Parts: sequence; structure tokens; C-alpha cells
Amino acid sequence: MITKNTLKQVASLHQQKFRKELGLFVVEGRKMAEELLRSGLKVVGLYATPAFIEARGAAFPTAETVSEAQMAQMSAFETPPGILAVVRIPEERPLSGTAHLVLALDGIANPGNMGTLIRTAEWFGLHDIVCSPDCVELWNPKTVQATMGSLFRVKVWRSDLATFLAEEKRSGKAVYGALLEGENLFHLQEKPEGVIVIGSESHGIRREILPHITHPITIPRMGGSATESLNAAVAGGIILAELTRPSSLRP
Amino acid sequence: MITKNTLKQVASLHQQKFRKELGLFVVEGRKMAEELLRSGLKVVGLYATPAFIEARGAAFPTAETVSEAQMAQMSAFETPPGILAVVRIPEERPLSGTAHLVLALDGIANPGNMGTLIRTAEWFGLHDIVCSPDCVELWNPKTVQATMGSLFRVKVWRSDLATFLAEEKRSGKAVYGALLEGENLFHLQEKPEGVIVIGSESHGIRREILPHITHPITIPRMGGSATESLNAAVAGGIILAELTRPSSLRP
Repeated sequence: MITKNTLKQVASLHQQKFRKELGLFVVEGRKMAEELLRSGLKVVGLYATPAFIEARGAAFPTAETVSEAQMAQMSAFETPPGILAVVRIPEERPLSGTAHLVLALDGIANPGNMGTLIRTAEWFGLHDIVCSPDCVELWNPKTVQATMGSLFRVKVWRSDLATFLAEEKRSGKAVYGALLEGENLFHLQEKPEGVIVIGSESHGIRREILPHITHPITIPRMGGSATESLNAAVAGGIILAELTRPSSLRP
Repeated sequence: MITKNTLKQVASLHQQKFRKELGLFVVEGRKMAEELLRSGLKVVGLYATPAFIEARGAAFPTAETVSEAQMAQMSAFETPPGILAVVRIPEERPLSGTAHLVLALDGIANPGNMGTLIRTAEWFGLHDIVCSPDCVELWNPKTVQATMGSLFRVKVWRSDLATFLAEEKRSGKAVYGALLEGENLFHLQEKPEGVIVIGSESHGIRREILPHITHPITIPRMGGSATESLNAAVAGGIILAELTRPSSLRP
């Protein structure tokens, strides 16, 4: 039986302070739990409600039963999905260094955008993601959820972006930056290999990063549209789709 | 001076039930308030904190001052942006019927995705959006915010999607549907004119809509990626970018 102390500890993991202190984070939902169990990450607790066990328990033989009220206390969801894992935060793994395209995130503040960008990067075959130190924390329940499992498979590295990009540029790589004033994304002709930089929701790519951008690019807006910008995750998705498209399918 | 009753009424607008009952919704933040005042929508109250008035008040001469505590009570934000408008929900305006491309949303449940899809549609020059009746409410504070003002400019029409799409198809229009098994989006050759259907986050396009899809399309996933799907707003963005791209820039 789960103890009151464990319940309290799991609930405390909604806060970054306690995730950091305990080195643990929470994963919820059937699909996410399945991906987690395949991931090789260290699961220190797996809990499910009686209703979940009855419907899906066979796939989770190690899950410990907790009451609906206990699950509600532990869950970060208003409607808890019924299965919850407590997981050890893994050590940061270095980037593979061999990837053709790396995604770099500069100050992404919204957990949903952060998770969605990771999910989208993986869809388009990227494995390496570099985040500025002020990007929202990866183990935030909303970020974890929005990755839909991708965070178990890609490498996310926190690093001073200016230093990282300066080195990439020096080694001859292209550094694409999503800006409001750049070359039309759909006019790009070169074979894309290098780094794609996406800036924050409110300020875009910050000033000190700009000198490291070798290819400023813009998603063209249709004439007459009064929108000022695109959502950061949507912009990232459109750029990733274009730059990973086989060159035979590019104009 | 704002009354206790007004405060309570504004706070009640966080709930759909009261938005419906009172026919009012809330808009927050400087940019959103600016867009709102340009929109022609009927503003029934405009409130700002002393700090906001001092910094930005000149642009909002009609704003009534409220205390930080009063603003905190009215705001849907954890950190209120300092200006808040109460606005009459406008009557639904019919679609223009002349648009080359219409976005149709089938059961979008997440307010952030809903708002982001509207914002993205406007970026790419679309003005007409049709939503199935079970899409999340447009006047939800999170939806309003995620549109970044686009909801003041585009037409959003709630309608039975099957009926709407059947008519579009009958009149010879193309009905593109984002599906996991369709034609490669990047192989499409035709001039796109018609309707783009994006399905819900958890179930995609529902079964009864499928017979009305004339062009099932898929965003190709890179080999080896284990992701099952893209976020609905990201998928919408990638498809909108591709189908609104001038044909001279298409392969």
C-alpha cells in the first residue's frame, strides 16, 4: 500500500523545486507509460487506479493499485488518466555530434510549445536538441505530456547557445534562424545541414544570438494578413518540414 | 469605482456557463486590447491597474482604474497583464463563401490548439473557419489568448461538418483531410482550392467525415521516427504553409 509520505512526495513533484531536489519527475497516461517502459529510464514507482487496472492492467503487471482519491492527489491532471509513473531524471547525454540537423531553442517559455517542438523534431528525424539555459524545464508535467513520448528518445542538451552556435558556425555549418525579416523559407535552395534556431514566444531570437545566424529565414505571410507572428511551435514545425524535405521535392 | 457585483460578474466569465448566460467574454493584455479596440466589437468594460495606466494608459483613455487585487480577481492569468476588457460575444457571421481555402476543424478539444489554428490560418491568408459543434468554445480565455487577436478578424462558423463538407464536395471543391494514411502532402500537384480538414488531438478526423474527404493527405514522417502523430496545430500549420504556397514555389 502506498504511504502518505509517498503520496505527498509524488504530489510535490508538480513543483520544479522538488523535482530538482529529489531528481524525480512524473509521467502519466497509458501511451506515455508504455513509451516510458520501453525507454530504459529508471522507474521508481508505477501506480494505477482500480478502473485502469481492470481495463488495461495486463500491460502493466508491476503497477501498484491506488484509490481514485490517491491518484487525484498525485496527478497533475484535472482528470487523471489513471496510470502514473515516478521516474528518475536521467543525466544529460551529450549530443550525438553526427546529426545533419540540430534544433536549437532560445528561451522557449511555454511548456506546451517546448514539448511540441521536441515531438515535432523527432517526427522529422532530428535527434539532437539544444536549449538555452532559460528554456522551460524539460521535466515539467506539461512539457513531458506535450512531447508525447519523444523526450524518451531524443537528446536534449542545455547549453549556452551563443557558444554552441559560434562553434557550429566556425566549423562551417549553416545556422538557420527563424526571424521576421529573413530570406523566404520557400526560396531556400541549399541542401540544409546545420542548426535551426527558434526564438522565444515573446521576443524571438535574442540579440546576442543574431551574429551567429548564417541564414536568417522567414515564413512568408500572406498579403493582407494582420497577424504579427506565428506560434513558436507552429513556426518550428513549418521550418522543420521544409528543411527536412528531400531535395527532389523542393522547388 | 468598480462594484463588487461587477467584479464577481467578470470573474464568473472564466466559466463557459456564465459566458453563455451573459453573452460576454474577456480579453486581456495590451496587444490584445489594442486589436480589440480596432475590431469594432462592443466593449462593455475596460479595466487597468495603476501600474499599467502609468506605463501605457495614454493609449487607453477610457480604461477605468482597478486595484491589483481587483484585477487579480477578474483575470484568468496567474500573472495578470494589467489590462482587461469585457466584450459582448458577437453574433456568428456567415462564411464569406468566396474564399479559395477554408479551414475546417473536427473536434479540436484543446483551447491552445484551437486558438493557434485560427492564428495560423490568418497568417496564411484564410478568413473562413468552420468548426464542428464539439470543438472547444471560441470565447474560452485560453482560446482567445492563443489567437493573438486573429479571432477579431476571421470568421468562425460552428456547423455540422458532415453537411458542410458534403455540400462543398458536391459543388466540386476539393476537401483535403489530414490523415495518417494519405497522399504525401509534398507530392500534391493540383492548385489547392477548397477545404482543409484537421481532426481532433486524440482521434483525428472522425469516421463519419471520411466519406466527404476527396484528398486524404499525410505529412511524411522521417524514416526511423517513433512518433505516432504531430500536434494538431503544428500539422495544420504545415499543411496551410504548403497549400497556400504560390504554385511557382511548389515542386
